[in-house]
Amino acid sequence: MKENIITNLFSIKYPIIQAGMVWCSGWRLASAVSNAGGLGIIGSGSMRPNILKEHIQKCRKNTNHNFAVNLPLLFPYSSEHIDIIISEKVPIVFTSAGNPAIWTKKLQSNNVIVVHVISNLKFALKAIEAGVDALVCEGFEAGGHNGREETTTFCLIPLIKKSIGDIPLIAAGGISSGQSMLAAMVLGADGVQIGSRFVVSKESSAHMNFKNKILNSNDGDTVLTLKELTPVRMLKNKFYSRIEEAYLDNASKSDLKVLLGKGRAQKGMFLGDLSEGELEIGQVASMLNSIDSASDIIDEIIKEFNFEKKRLKQL
Amino acid sequence: MKENIITNLFSIKYPIIQAGMVWCSGWRLASAVSNAGGLGIIGSGSMRPNILKEHIQKCRKNTNHNFAVNLPLLFPYSSEHIDIIISEKVPIVFTSAGNPAIWTKKLQSNNVIVVHVISNLKFALKAIEAGVDALVCEGFEAGGHNGREETTTFCLIPLIKKSIGDIPLIAAGGISSGQSMLAAMVLGADGVQIGSRFVVSKESSAHMNFKNKILNSNDGDTVLTLKELTPVRMLKNKFYSRIEEAYLDNASKSDLKVLLGKGRAQKGMFLGDLSEGELEIGQVASMLNSIDSASDIIDEIIKEFNFEKKRLKQL
Repeated sequence: MKENIITNLFSIKYPIIQAGMVWCSGWRLASAVSNAGGLGIIGSGSMRPNILKEHIQKCRKNTNHNFAVNLPLLFPYSSEHIDIIISEKVPIVFTSAGNPAIWTKKLQSNNVIVVHVISNLKFALKAIEAGVDALVCEGFEAGGHNGREETTTFCLIPLIKKSIGDIPLIAAGGISSGQSMLAAMVLGADGVQIGSRFVVSKESSAHMNFKNKILNSNDGDTVLTLKELTPVRMLKNKFYSRIEEAYLDNASKSDLKVLLGKGRAQKGMFLGDLSEGELEIGQVASMLNSIDSASDIIDEIIKEFNFEKKRLKQL
Repeated sequence: MKENIITNLFSIKYPIIQAGMVWCSGWRLASAVSNAGGLGIIGSGSMRPNILKEHIQKCRKNTNHNFAVNLPLLFPYSSEHIDIIISEKVPIVFTSAGNPAIWTKKLQSNNVIVVHVISNLKFALKAIEAGVDALVCEGFEAGGHNGREETTTFCLIPLIKKSIGDIPLIAAGGISSGQSMLAAMVLGADGVQIGSRFVVSKESSAHMNFKNKILNSNDGDTVLTLKELTPVRMLKNKFYSRIEEAYLDNASKSDLKVLLGKGRAQKGMFLGDLSEGELEIGQVASMLNSIDSASDIIDEIIKEFNFEKKRLKQL
């Protein structure tokens, strides 16, 4: 693979970004991905400030390469997290779920590269206006928190590329292989963000119950739900059946909030409670069938990417 | 473009299939697409038997190339339509929305090539068992009637390809350009089915009001709704607001049926009532900005396809 606008921006070998994911992507996964030539991201959305600091320091000890922190801007600790990111000299931040105008300039003036996650054209234009350095365009098929417009990767990437032009563009949602990476780049992406595949990596801190549930899942087993709160894609389980029942009972927004409660993502993804936990994962879960190291995943993706490039010549 | 398993199966120049669409794709569009090197399809779902017969005969008069008829198997006239398809010696049928086991053998024993539209792996396996000659794999982003699992083109195509292997595979949903055509083929498709882009073609029988509404639409303007009846993707309008209200009022399935009533697709798409009609279109509507002839559309797609293939070498 040749260098491009994304590998140059992040000083990495391959334009493969491991998504920052609550309860799954701590220092161990992030450093492994960065060591393998991609960009590892610490998912700070499940960390208190002291825990984030620890993960950043451990990540730095375990890789000489660049890594990033993912920061949901509506997260209660986001202001403290930003202070830590700056004082620990984290080189790159991926912001999501909030207004990029609030923190982008402060981060950039402290030499932090800022990437913002969007799911529609309106938010992309806002992020550009805020001066972000790159965009992650996340399609409907992606796991975890997601946009309300339900625009898929296949429709979102060309639309943003056509409307915005030359800002570095990272595709997310539905990508787990070199084949899907190449397809995303055909659609106009300069790089890809991969979540689900790294949830089932060896270095992911996801509970083994959750990893096995993913490996055994089929198409149609995930659903984007709780749109009245924050839309989230997760595996259907007993907890989801209760959400379905609540909808049938015409539940209000506050009923849904009570049902969701607190700590469900931790319960499901980190503690392995497959019945009552929230199991955030993308549609691509049905394609996954082995637990590999981050390094083997990236090597395989690059091999597939190059194979597909050659195959295409015959079309 | 080189010939492949799809161009050989249908005896066409390019693996581009124009989707059979109610109220939009009669003989005029189908023959124009077939004359331009693709496969035109007459959408029989909005036609009574005598009208279908007329469209088949006119299509044949206007092209020497192969064309097809799309047949929703649950349609009230499907049995009469099949008799007409056989007696008129239509060479190819695309079946959807129903059990392919019922008609596939009869059609094939009358020298009709049978293609079946699926939206998940389970239905793909059923179609293979029924002996169909090819599959259309339709993603969540596609317009009109659609699957319940909400699996997107980006996730559906590689899954079906990996699980089923060498049956000719046509991707549908989110495809409107040579770029998206190439991306679909990277994901494992042998050809593409394009709907929305042909709805706004010169030869489409869609009402000009509907065409203009599509050209002015943005991302997020379509929605997959009425999942309790037959899921359908359409543009949001006054009629959709009433569906939303009905959901908020906890409408039953029969309430929704009453609200839908009869003739809404005709009203919106054919008669141009943008408020009360059902305006079926895909997410890719937001990418469309001109009304071109079918021949110009296909030429442009092929040009873009070849341009993208060259660009890929630089990745």
